[in-house]
Amino acid sequence: MNPITTDPLDRIRYPIDEWALVETEYVPEEQGVAESIFAVGNGYIGMRGNYTEGRGGVSYGTYVNGFHETWPIRHAEDAFGFAKVGQTIVNAPDAKVIRLYVDDEPLIMEEADILRHTRRLEFRDGFLLRETEWSTPSGKRVLIRMRRLVSFTDRHLAVVDYEVTVLDADASVLLSSQVLNRQDGADEYHSRSVIPATQFDPRRAETFTERVLLPRLKRTHGSRSLLGYQASSSGMTICVGVEHRLETENAWDEQSQIDDDLAKHVFRVQAKRGKPVRLIKTITYHTSRGVPARELADRCDRTLDRAKYVPVEDIVAQQRAWLDDFWARSDVEIAGHPDIQQAVRWNLFQLAQATARTDGHGIAAKGVTGSGYGGHYFWDMEIYVLPFLSYTAPIVARNALRFRYNMLPAARDRARELNQRGALFPWRTINGQESSAYYAAGTAQYHIDADIAHALMQYVHASGDTEFLKRGAIDVLIETARLWEDLGFWRSNGDQKFHIDGVTGPDEYTTVVDDNLYTNVMARANLWSAVNACRQLQADDPVEFERMIRRTGLDVNEIGDWERAAEAMEIPFDPHRGIHPQDAQFLDKELWDLEATPESKRPLLLHYHPLVIYRFQVLKQADVVLALFLQGHEFTPAEKRRDFEYYDALTTGDSTLSAVVQSIIAAEVGYHELAEKYFLTALYVDLANLHGNTTDGVHVASTGGIWSALVSGFGGMRDHGGRMTFNPRLPQSWERLTYRITVRGSRLRVDLEQDCMRFTVETGDGARVWVHNEEFIVTPAEPTVVSLVHQGPRMSGHTPTTSDIQGTLRADGSVITASIPTISLQRNVEQDASGS
Amino acid sequence: MNPITTDPLDRIRYPIDEWALVETEYVPEEQGVAESIFAVGNGYIGMRGNYTEGRGGVSYGTYVNGFHETWPIRHAEDAFGFAKVGQTIVNAPDAKVIRLYVDDEPLIMEEADILRHTRRLEFRDGFLLRETEWSTPSGKRVLIRMRRLVSFTDRHLAVVDYEVTVLDADASVLLSSQVLNRQDGADEYHSRSVIPATQFDPRRAETFTERVLLPRLKRTHGSRSLLGYQASSSGMTICVGVEHRLETENAWDEQSQIDDDLAKHVFRVQAKRGKPVRLIKTITYHTSRGVPARELADRCDRTLDRAKYVPVEDIVAQQRAWLDDFWARSDVEIAGHPDIQQAVRWNLFQLAQATARTDGHGIAAKGVTGSGYGGHYFWDMEIYVLPFLSYTAPIVARNALRFRYNMLPAARDRARELNQRGALFPWRTINGQESSAYYAAGTAQYHIDADIAHALMQYVHASGDTEFLKRGAIDVLIETARLWEDLGFWRSNGDQKFHIDGVTGPDEYTTVVDDNLYTNVMARANLWSAVNACRQLQADDPVEFERMIRRTGLDVNEIGDWERAAEAMEIPFDPHRGIHPQDAQFLDKELWDLEATPESKRPLLLHYHPLVIYRFQVLKQADVVLALFLQGHEFTPAEKRRDFEYYDALTTGDSTLSAVVQSIIAAEVGYHELAEKYFLTALYVDLANLHGNTTDGVHVASTGGIWSALVSGFGGMRDHGGRMTFNPRLPQSWERLTYRITVRGSRLRVDLEQDCMRFTVETGDGARVWVHNEEFIVTPAEPTVVSLVHQGPRMSGHTPTTSDIQGTLRADGSVITASIPTISLQRNVEQDASGS
Repeated sequence: MNPITTDPLDRIRYPIDEWALVETEYVPEEQGVAESIFAVGNGYIGMRGNYTEGRGGVSYGTYVNGFHETWPIRHAEDAFGFAKVGQTIVNAPDAKVIRLYVDDEPLIMEEADILRHTRRLEFRDGFLLRETEWSTPSGKRVLIRMRRLVSFTDRHLAVVDYEVTVLDADASVLLSSQVLNRQDGADEYHSRSVIPATQFDPRRAETFTERVLLPRLKRTHGSRSLLGYQASSSGMTICVGVEHRLETENAWDEQSQIDDDLAKHVFRVQAKRGKPVRLIKTITYHTSRGVPARELADRCDRTLDRAKYVPVEDIVAQQRAWLDDFWARSDVEIAGHPDIQQAVRWNLFQLAQATARTDGHGIAAKGVTGSGYGGHYFWDMEIYVLPFLSYTAPIVARNALRFRYNMLPAARDRARELNQRGALFPWRTINGQESSAYYAAGTAQYHIDADIAHALMQYVHASGDTEFLKRGAIDVLIETARLWEDLGFWRSNGDQKFHIDGVTGPDEYTTVVDDNLYTNVMARANLWSAVNACRQLQADDPVEFERMIRRTGLDVNEIGDWERAAEAMEIPFDPHRGIHPQDAQFLDKELWDLEATPESKRPLLLHYHPLVIYRFQVLKQADVVLALFLQGHEFTPAEKRRDFEYYDALTTGDSTLSAVVQSIIAAEVGYHELAEKYFLTALYVDLANLHGNTTDGVHVASTGGIWSALVSGFGGMRDHGGRMTFNPRLPQSWERLTYRITVRGSRLRVDLEQDCMRFTVETGDGARVWVHNEEFIVTPAEPTVVSLVHQGPRMSGHTPTTSDIQGTLRADGSVITASIPTISLQRNVEQDASGS
Repeated sequence: MNPITTDPLDRIRYPIDEWALVETEYVPEEQGVAESIFAVGNGYIGMRGNYTEGRGGVSYGTYVNGFHETWPIRHAEDAFGFAKVGQTIVNAPDAKVIRLYVDDEPLIMEEADILRHTRRLEFRDGFLLRETEWSTPSGKRVLIRMRRLVSFTDRHLAVVDYEVTVLDADASVLLSSQVLNRQDGADEYHSRSVIPATQFDPRRAETFTERVLLPRLKRTHGSRSLLGYQASSSGMTICVGVEHRLETENAWDEQSQIDDDLAKHVFRVQAKRGKPVRLIKTITYHTSRGVPARELADRCDRTLDRAKYVPVEDIVAQQRAWLDDFWARSDVEIAGHPDIQQAVRWNLFQLAQATARTDGHGIAAKGVTGSGYGGHYFWDMEIYVLPFLSYTAPIVARNALRFRYNMLPAARDRARELNQRGALFPWRTINGQESSAYYAAGTAQYHIDADIAHALMQYVHASGDTEFLKRGAIDVLIETARLWEDLGFWRSNGDQKFHIDGVTGPDEYTTVVDDNLYTNVMARANLWSAVNACRQLQADDPVEFERMIRRTGLDVNEIGDWERAAEAMEIPFDPHRGIHPQDAQFLDKELWDLEATPESKRPLLLHYHPLVIYRFQVLKQADVVLALFLQGHEFTPAEKRRDFEYYDALTTGDSTLSAVVQSIIAAEVGYHELAEKYFLTALYVDLANLHGNTTDGVHVASTGGIWSALVSGFGGMRDHGGRMTFNPRLPQSWERLTYRITVRGSRLRVDLEQDCMRFTVETGDGARVWVHNEEFIVTPAEPTVVSLVHQGPRMSGHTPTTSDIQGTLRADGSVITASIPTISLQRNVEQDASGS
């Protein structure tokens, strides 16, 4: 994935609007992508942007966070401890379907004569709006207007507001509102346009060959229907309910029918020319691990009863109010670039849709927009999404961390299965059990333990919520520290270093390595966090300390062991090249010639056997560079620049997690143009389908990374150990960048311009910040304005390449950075965002 | 697996007989093992030692070499290039069943009142002989005598000669002779005593849930029946035919019936007291990749027609004649140890049964005795079995190598799939396609290429058959050399070494490592062989050289590239410890404490996740030690001893391939008692079921290793580059060891005693040999007697352990061998079997 340099969108098709994603055409062959980027959701319920008429789509999907089926993983060659229970998000019954017939002619978007068409995903209103004007086969002009909304305020509620007007004639209008169990194939039309399964892509979800949703309940009365199911193997239950209200001046009647996989309410309307027919469909989903469907049905009834008496406009107003608050906390403004502004807000809006009401669940790789990666939760959540949440929505961050805390018993069991003390969190999971069937790029990613500890401490520092730690979350630090201390070892050659062998770092293009730099640096921080948290709890609150001892069986001598391991942690460094090897053996590998690798062979993982990829210095994402970001205070600016230059040249960016991190560190070390390119590449990853798999859902981690790239990359914010430092580097073409962060209950607005930055306290008491190492106390009294004179190094437009590395190494093995002629190592580089 | 020190067999149950394996009891719970060790076969057809009555067994198996079913390998998480086609040996229709009813009471061994019972697997006669005296429920004494034979001379022929005599009364005797398709479950009784599938064991074969053998033909006339099938997915065809002859003075009649999965001939006999009823059942199997079953049926008819007029005693005599020749070529005699003698001959007899008539097929890990490892061919064939064949049955060795040669096109395709030039042979296969679903311990074992090249050159040197090389087999050397040259690389740090990264050596307790010593040493030999063979062909036979160029597209510059790669091949060596690291990173790993690992956790692979095992210095088998054997001329005696000591302490022996190699090198470096222990451990691996999985079939590689342990271990024979050297070290308690080797058409008998060895030319012109570096020309004129004064080093009874290693390393990191106090490094060790 080479970084892009310009706006990749066709702006006739997708016109710029700072507060909405807009499309002006229906393009059948791009529906897969459109369904993902126009999806609506609230972190619990998600509905893909399929057309309401239920035809012509690629992937019909409705997802309820955590509602999954399990299946026995059958390994072609099994081994002890391999993951046993596969978990896959279920395609929940599709309740958004309203089929439209005018004079018995169906509206099928891909075949219809469409006179004009727009869709708008409204970032402030929180709904998907559509207007389509259709010329029927008999030549009647029909206007369809639709709003689709998944409520942020009422977690179980969604609304489809569908209005049809025959503009130039009378006509018979038939609306067939349906609830369809698509998981088990209850749509005869579906298979026609489904993605061909022939092309191998491990990133897709498992498919089932047997029935998943066992019918448990069907009930219809009046304009309401309920369908209840139990997932065949996981035993989870779901109930979906719909309630209809038809508003029209035309004459009409209604019929309903229900069977196991389909509930149908049919409205026949004798529509007069110009007289609208409006069907308001209120939808609710309730799920559970095992509560009987009939009880969920009662819950559905209650949700529908409540919504019944609320006018749609009130629901819309509540949604708007919620989003007003969201944007007040979370908006990032880029003055003078409405195209970028639009894409940034789309990314932030995705974060709201993926996280707002996850409540007790995790945040899946695709949020609730698609079934990619099986609906699993990964480390993305902690490292890419939680920074945004911790600084804009602490309560949501806390819920996500509580979700991990609740997984601790399963993580303890898994550690035991892998012969370790402490807890090992699953690399990918829905229910807490490891579900990664390929351990080399799964279970071996022990770093997830440290990632969770990192996110936990970041939340605690950002929010000041030490109570959360005290009252249980500290156990996560303790059990993960235990794992590291037990997993690592003191090498018998007497080097006095603490080593961690046989693990995989975030970069999945090498696996099962020794002393992965990212892992060791993060594990060290994990151990220190545990040491500090235990000592502080002991000092501050002996009673809670005792409770913790009772819960964890901690022996206080363990704390000393953790400290010793942390202090002696091996941090690989190559003095010759002046860089940190990705792992102990990495620099001995052969270099992959990326420049000679054609685009047709990218991403590498779809074209080369893992053994081939693993044999080379080539990266899916640069995990050393990620370490430079997350633990930046542990590295000098010169190290950061050399590391960045070395690894950037080797990085394919085949992971969507790559570009945002490259952007952040490129900005920090002075590659400003490159930082912008990477930023754009991440910004449009889904909007322009740059990785070719947006059909499978939105890359939520990348949307979180966009916030980090803005706030920590260009905005230069770091928070190592809770110290809020700012070393901004605004792109030269940007006039102003404005963002908000909530720190220990106080919301600050930060306005960054080329020559100054301004901190304004919007709520709360203010905060202490450091700008270029100078301390400022920001108070509500008046904005704090800081003049910016430092801009750090600014590198030329040259992008590091493998031939830079190869050329140098082949010639004389000298320091790699010398190969980039525009950079002088002697240049006086200012100390950057380090905690020193 | 700790080595054993004494005969582990219960000699009442298994009495000693130098020319037969004998059992005197029927023990129901040990039938699984008995079925394997009493199996009969000829390398093409194999029949497990089930009782003829077809009841009370554990695993009924009939195998025809190469007759397999395919299935799509479904990877729980797939990746590019993962093996796609699973292959599993099919359980061919069971033709050996003759059910016996006396007065309508069935003989079921596990329930019957058995008065006396013996079975004998006759090594010289080549049949399984049984005598059982049964007291029926009504108290009649019935004598059953049975001979079962799979012909070595007629590849498609087997005979069951079954005789029943009611000793003390008249009785109605009913013999129901059957052919049963057990693969698809056509035996109602079978499931009862099958091995529970609950216990996880990756070494077992895949099971099928759908029908494998599709009925294609059924035919019965007179006393003959034929059943033909086609395997559902592989498309292979099989036909089985049986012909009956009843010999008795009693009155009898016959009825037959046939359906898709069962052919039955029922003989009702009014048996008079003491008058035998003898049923001779002639059996034939024909298989094919796709010839229609009806054509195979014609072939079956022809085989049966031919056999029909041959008295059984003639078939028995042919078998005896074949075996007389086999033993003349292959026997190894140990004077004064009839127990060891018996076990040795059983092992050698297994080699005959596994290899004699494989003809165009490979030699499977279990021969034709069981379905373990799915009936696949591995490197075992080249490294463990071919030495025996090359020196005792060159034509059989040649067939096995031709089998690999015929796989070359598939190996070329596989190399391409793994992004390499040349050819990559599959790690496990039946049909030539890679079938290893776990690449880390499968596809990554690139060393199989070098193993095949090694075996090919060993055969050429032993036989002098350079024509074989010239007329095509040289392509194997060329394509494997190409692979190595392309797979390895010159490291950019300018170390001028040729490295091979990301491969797995034979030791599967570490995987995907860099510069595995075994692989690099063997690859170097492979490259040199290719260089030499090409240059010699060019010099000797320009026409064949041109033909080769046309076949392989060789550019003569490639030869120079191979030579440079070979000369610069990285051979890891640790000067500090004075040993060869197993791979570049091996010595940095943590030591596994084997002494603290309870037997209940062995073998490790069944109790620890691979990630755990891979993280430690712990071995399944010592591949460095194997390299010391196969390429012994590349190492000094002192290196060999230090390497052996280091790795022996870390070796679990969880692989049955381990003990024989440890025995050979223990003998060479002077650990004579240990060499004997390892020898015994390998000798009885199946007879005493030491690895607990003999039920799945005989470990054929170990049987081949027994020959090597005798001839190369105690006998001290090496043949590096075709030079026959002998440095014998006869166990102190052995009076004499006699073995035969065929060298370039001349058969030598070698008699080794404590103080002398004698070479006698049994056929041919004799040979040149070196004993302790002194040259002897052995001629047919008279035996050559060599006086032995050298015995090399002789170590104390101390066995190296991990605590030796740990103790030393923990103390001061000094040279590891110092930890074994009884060994002085200064001791003057005589130069051993090296080619210098």
